[in-house]
Amino acid sequence: MIDAKDLIERYRIEPGSRPRIKDRDTRDEKLFTDEKATKGETKEIAKDINHCQDALYAEGKRALLVILQGTDTSGKDGTIQAVFGYTSPLGVQVTAFKKPSEDELAHDYLWRVHGCCPKRGFIGVFNRSHYEDVLVTKVHGLVDDDVVEQRYKQINDFERMLTENGTRVLKFMLHISKAEQKERLQARLDEADKNWKFNPSDLEDRKHWDAFEDAYESMLRHCSTDWAPWHVIPADRKWVRNAAIAAIVRATLEDMAPAYPAVSWDPKSIKFE
Amino acid sequence: MIDAKDLIERYRIEPGSRPRIKDRDTRDEKLFTDEKATKGETKEIAKDINHCQDALYAEGKRALLVILQGTDTSGKDGTIQAVFGYTSPLGVQVTAFKKPSEDELAHDYLWRVHGCCPKRGFIGVFNRSHYEDVLVTKVHGLVDDDVVEQRYKQINDFERMLTENGTRVLKFMLHISKAEQKERLQARLDEADKNWKFNPSDLEDRKHWDAFEDAYESMLRHCSTDWAPWHVIPADRKWVRNAAIAAIVRATLEDMAPAYPAVSWDPKSIKFE
Repeated sequence: MIDAKDLIERYRIEPGSRPRIKDRDTRDEKLFTDEKATKGETKEIAKDINHCQDALYAEGKRALLVILQGTDTSGKDGTIQAVFGYTSPLGVQVTAFKKPSEDELAHDYLWRVHGCCPKRGFIGVFNRSHYEDVLVTKVHGLVDDDVVEQRYKQINDFERMLTENGTRVLKFMLHISKAEQKERLQARLDEADKNWKFNPSDLEDRKHWDAFEDAYESMLRHCSTDWAPWHVIPADRKWVRNAAIAAIVRATLEDMAPAYPAVSWDPKSIKFE
Repeated sequence: MIDAKDLIERYRIEPGSRPRIKDRDTRDEKLFTDEKATKGETKEIAKDINHCQDALYAEGKRALLVILQGTDTSGKDGTIQAVFGYTSPLGVQVTAFKKPSEDELAHDYLWRVHGCCPKRGFIGVFNRSHYEDVLVTKVHGLVDDDVVEQRYKQINDFERMLTENGTRVLKFMLHISKAEQKERLQARLDEADKNWKFNPSDLEDRKHWDAFEDAYESMLRHCSTDWAPWHVIPADRKWVRNAAIAAIVRATLEDMAPAYPAVSWDPKSIKFE
């Protein structure tokens, strides 16, 4: 049985702590041993997420925002399919943030993100997010370090505002090893139908592996908050990654406990032809 | 075996024809007899739709827009769940159009719709659409008939433009009988968890059943085009509705035949640590 409490204890970054990514396991052989049973349970959890979202929509007061970050091939797309694949397409809205457009760059970096936050009743999923603006920009020196520091605070304020206005925020870093990334990139080269997914420029980021790890550590330290916690998920094994994230999402929705609203009129009083 | 050709022949509105909605069956007992087998097949079709969307995304050149219209309780939400419930949430974007906001009303009626059309590679689903602007507006006399006539042409031009720019457009009217609507409304009153779905004002539209039928007939006659055809789907039985729409969507995607693109570089030439 997957126990979300165990997972949160293991993977959640304590606000203000200094996480050492290198010390964190990318497999978690200890907690996850039975692949078949775990996959079956993940499917059931995904169905529960659908039911919770239905109640969230009926209630119409709150939303859930799930933010996924991780290096190329870390499995953001696959996670979305596994965790939200049983949620009605009506209730979940996925936004994949790419390189910003000219128009987006003409605004502050949170502008495009704010525009894609979920409405009340919905689950929003970000495939990459405003965290790119303190990760890739930091690694490539596109902004000064003091601007990055300022952004950490701005992001925390922004996410607190969302939370205070009814949107619960959950953040997941998909943590894979450098060796696992190598295998996944190689698979994109070896399988003809996957060639299109391979972008030779991805290898550039791979060369900066350690710098990205540093940028993630700094970001996790500053931006895991009580209101919008980060979780570092062992992602070398896809079924472990899916199970862990699904369980934490479900536990969060259960904690929100959305309720079907009572109506202000008497259902028995309505008559019609 | 569900044959999409049969379905298209039966349900598609011939451009320029005068459809008589009253003459159209809401059950189709002739074509659909085996509920269990049909449900199983619908699930397989829904999985195929996911594979087609994946190729559509990889190709990155075209999109599919599915427009659903139908009276309250006709099953638009349920259709989306059944037909696109197996498509990755990454690849399908659903937009539910409600009563327009002040900001939306300050623009032309196609403005908000255009903003929600799918990007290349994606499937967009409209739960209600710009057709409300020639249906509910016509029935309630919110716009003059000559404006409605003008809008038919504007809509056809708009949809042709979408098609010429790579977005295939498919339109479905979910056709239920007045008796079936009564049952479904009553269920919302009888089941406490469904009370919130019941809006006493829905009964207003029910009083205008015949006027809505006339408005639909006029719209179907003017706006079923070679490039964006309307289909009138028998929707009294949910599994029939789901099977018919899923089959027509899959047939359309197969006709589009999106292909995984070849890459311009040699996969074997790429080496990395």
